[in-house]
Amino acid sequence: MKKSVIENVKNSVRELSAYTLKDYEYDLKMNQNENPYDVPADIKKEILEYALERSWSRYPTFIPFALHDKLAEYSGWRADGILAGNGSNEIIQALMAIFLGPGDKIVLPSPTFTVYGLVARVLEAEVVNVPLNPDMSFDCDALEEAFLGDEKAKVLVICSPNNPTGTLYPLDRLEALLQKTDRAVVVDEAYYEFSKVSAVDMLERYDNLVVLRTFSKAFSFAAMRFGYGLMSPELATEVGKAKLPYNIDFFSEAAAMKLIDNRDRLQAGIDELIEERDRILPLMNVLDGVKAYPSRANFILFETKRPPAEIFDALLADGILVRNVSSYPMLGKALRVSVSTPSDNDRFLASLKKALG
Amino acid sequence: MKKSVIENVKNSVRELSAYTLKDYEYDLKMNQNENPYDVPADIKKEILEYALERSWSRYPTFIPFALHDKLAEYSGWRADGILAGNGSNEIIQALMAIFLGPGDKIVLPSPTFTVYGLVARVLEAEVVNVPLNPDMSFDCDALEEAFLGDEKAKVLVICSPNNPTGTLYPLDRLEALLQKTDRAVVVDEAYYEFSKVSAVDMLERYDNLVVLRTFSKAFSFAAMRFGYGLMSPELATEVGKAKLPYNIDFFSEAAAMKLIDNRDRLQAGIDELIEERDRILPLMNVLDGVKAYPSRANFILFETKRPPAEIFDALLADGILVRNVSSYPMLGKALRVSVSTPSDNDRFLASLKKALG
Repeated sequence: MKKSVIENVKNSVRELSAYTLKDYEYDLKMNQNENPYDVPADIKKEILEYALERSWSRYPTFIPFALHDKLAEYSGWRADGILAGNGSNEIIQALMAIFLGPGDKIVLPSPTFTVYGLVARVLEAEVVNVPLNPDMSFDCDALEEAFLGDEKAKVLVICSPNNPTGTLYPLDRLEALLQKTDRAVVVDEAYYEFSKVSAVDMLERYDNLVVLRTFSKAFSFAAMRFGYGLMSPELATEVGKAKLPYNIDFFSEAAAMKLIDNRDRLQAGIDELIEERDRILPLMNVLDGVKAYPSRANFILFETKRPPAEIFDALLADGILVRNVSSYPMLGKALRVSVSTPSDNDRFLASLKKALG
Repeated sequence: MKKSVIENVKNSVRELSAYTLKDYEYDLKMNQNENPYDVPADIKKEILEYALERSWSRYPTFIPFALHDKLAEYSGWRADGILAGNGSNEIIQALMAIFLGPGDKIVLPSPTFTVYGLVARVLEAEVVNVPLNPDMSFDCDALEEAFLGDEKAKVLVICSPNNPTGTLYPLDRLEALLQKTDRAVVVDEAYYEFSKVSAVDMLERYDNLVVLRTFSKAFSFAAMRFGYGLMSPELATEVGKAKLPYNIDFFSEAAAMKLIDNRDRLQAGIDELIEERDRILPLMNVLDGVKAYPSRANFILFETKRPPAEIFDALLADGILVRNVSSYPMLGKALRVSVSTPSDNDRFLASLKKALG
């Protein structure tokens, strides 16, 4: 009698729940920390004109050197230490694959972005979760202890600003940590353009630091999934072996370069989102029974006196989709809202006020 | 004294050579088995018009059900057993990740497409290479023995037609093998549209069979990297856990659907490539000292009396880029040429004849 092929799947995978997302009807999408402003039409047209001319039947550039040069110009890091991916997720996956196997550990603040833990578990690594402080700031001492105190802990990932809390990891604490270890410390700066705080300057001094960035947020490019990693050239060579060849399609390559060239055009929207974040946070906090946490990203974590599922439903009844993050550790009372345009944000505030009754 | 972070990289990765590709100046590109015919301009324009309208700042569809339905219609397999990836490479990577870890083995014919072995070694699995027969056909007996006789062998991958040899795995031998095991057998049909032979009909009977396909060859879509895997719905759920969320960008999703709808438009080019393959193979074989192997793909493996590096250089001097595959096992005397348009192929034949002196 043949068994099912599923019996041969690694236990670490079978134990994982599949990542799911429910579909909702909505009018305002404030659940995925997207930029509400699309790429300007004239920039899109330039990219699409190139896409019309360029043959679709020919493979993309094997190593996109010109793109790496542009990313170097933008990030301030050397081009030979840059890897591009289909979303920073792809770079996360390659990074984990070169460091982690059965018996190894990854240290993560908890809660944080879920992809790190999922990827590590597929690789049969153990995930060591270090809770945030009650005010949602990082517990730097506990993270250092969990990471430095265990030789099996091969990777520490810090998402800064953290998702879904919006908090920064202090740069001085990061540097102190990097001085004490040669194991990999990954700083995910997906929201860098909203925080304006980066660890990039430390790359020169620490070859075990990796900085991840994405075009899915500030650069208005979530539809195409494009991200990149900054690291030492030697480490980039190793990570490159776990990254699939020809991973960057011609369209992402061309568009990312054009978006960097036109980043001044996108800056006004980014500046407005930062202003809006700082405008609505205190307005949320004056609402009865609302606690909104300070954020350096383009989203705000908040708790209310009503159960989060009820707030979620009430907002959705007004056409506003936010993220119910109450299944995350420590966040049993919390939701997350992406900062949007002034009028979207006002609509959200009015709907939230109504939901609180 | 701090060590380099590289010391923490898994040995299985450090031992790998980075995948490299040299840049050449050429006029005719016959080295990557691309379709010489681009997607027709009017089809491109329809896709690009959609790309202009659709917001680039919003994430792609979480699960692209409509795309799965189209792929089901095209492939004849159920939509809930289909996974799409950035090239079939991404599905290969996810498949390997759920089955392979340290101590596990993967059985591969040798030579074959190099990505399978690379991905398996990053996962610290052992690669068991089973040489082809001297005529470049698969040694089915030896493959069965290597795979069935070793419980640690979790995956067998058969690229059919094989790359770079062009040979098919006999369907009756495949079915006999599937009857004897519940471990995963992956059949990579990247060149299916040129061979017209598929294992898809067996998916209903064997839940350990996975069929891989790509849009990079017949569908003229190598620039975007799009592929898919066909398997049981239960296995698709497990593989889906190792595949990154939002992996299919909006452009690939829309274009793949449009290309399936317009597949009749692409068929004439595919038919011509098949005819051309069958036309030029005997013309190569009548050249002095040339041995060209029968192929069911869109490329031809051939050996000559001169060293392959010299033939490569002579063709390149005429502006024709082919692939020197002489570093592969068994192929010390071989090159591979992609079948192109009739005039390209004639130019290649004339240049090859000249190179032979």
